[in-house]
Amino acid sequence: MKELPLDEVYRLIEPGPVVLLSTRSGQGRSNVMTMSWHTMVAVAPPTIACVVSSGDLSFFALRQTKECVIAIPDVGLAEKVVKVGNCSGRDTDKFAKAWLTPLPAERVSAPLVAECFSNLECRVVDTRLVNKYNLFVLEVLKAWIDPGRPKPKTIHHVGNGNFVIDGEVIHFESRMP
Amino acid sequence: MKELPLDEVYRLIEPGPVVLLSTRSGQGRSNVMTMSWHTMVAVAPPTIACVVSSGDLSFFALRQTKECVIAIPDVGLAEKVVKVGNCSGRDTDKFAKAWLTPLPAERVSAPLVAECFSNLECRVVDTRLVNKYNLFVLEVLKAWIDPGRPKPKTIHHVGNGNFVIDGEVIHFESRMP
Repeated sequence: MKELPLDEVYRLIEPGPVVLLSTRSGQGRSNVMTMSWHTMVAVAPPTIACVVSSGDLSFFALRQTKECVIAIPDVGLAEKVVKVGNCSGRDTDKFAKAWLTPLPAERVSAPLVAECFSNLECRVVDTRLVNKYNLFVLEVLKAWIDPGRPKPKTIHHVGNGNFVIDGEVIHFESRMP
Repeated sequence: MKELPLDEVYRLIEPGPVVLLSTRSGQGRSNVMTMSWHTMVAVAPPTIACVVSSGDLSFFALRQTKECVIAIPDVGLAEKVVKVGNCSGRDTDKFAKAWLTPLPAERVSAPLVAECFSNLECRVVDTRLVNKYNLFVLEVLKAWIDPGRPKPKTIHHVGNGNFVIDGEVIHFESRMP
């Protein structure tokens, strides 16, 4: 994993891929969940809003520790991603069950996910919408990318276990960053 | 356009497509912008968070009227979408410039976009994160879908005018809705 400049993070999150959210509870228990409900909020410092249901175990670790890692899987990990989404950390060690490898992060206690092509170490910076909407605002403190996989295809959840895989790329002259 | 059940709206927003945001100012001026920074927040009632820069003219209409339409274009509209993104409503009638057709909505004053395969009439329901993050929370009041286009391909912005087009769909048995 190579460090990714923070001002390039938006390119990974803006297109809406399914991601993994990893946490480590105050009791030292690592957990990982799937997440599609996230959006960029600012490019610099990279700021992300995400929604984590209060029915998910990860919600409590995120609220308690205010730290997480957003890990971005490519399509090759789709089956593992679904496995992670289909069980709960309450009764399962999801890293073990899905054959995912936790790696120590640099700025947060939550683990990176070795198999993902990018990992974003995040800290919760705003909790005003947590009680009503389960919406956390995160700042990315450190970002990692696998230089060996320059154009990984991500997946996008369209409901009921159906995922759209990234297809062709088109380009237009644009004033948008 | 046919009415879309509100509890199916998440399937359109969750995968992260580029959308158009239409507004109509208190002075009666319609405008439209491109937007990639949005996420589902709740399935029912369908609730969406979106970020609209305070540098955009649409920001002021959205804050003032608390109403908008999120219109979802398919890849066939990509060139018009980029045209909309490359100019400002301050000096341009963007509907006219991009050859887009405004249609009256039912629950809000902002217009639908006739060329888009889906239109979501929205009302702002939470502004607590507007001042700091330009983040609006919207509730979808009414949703429309074009029954003649069952599986439109959407586009996802990956930075600098590059867009990924929806590719193949894969399916897994999933407990996720």
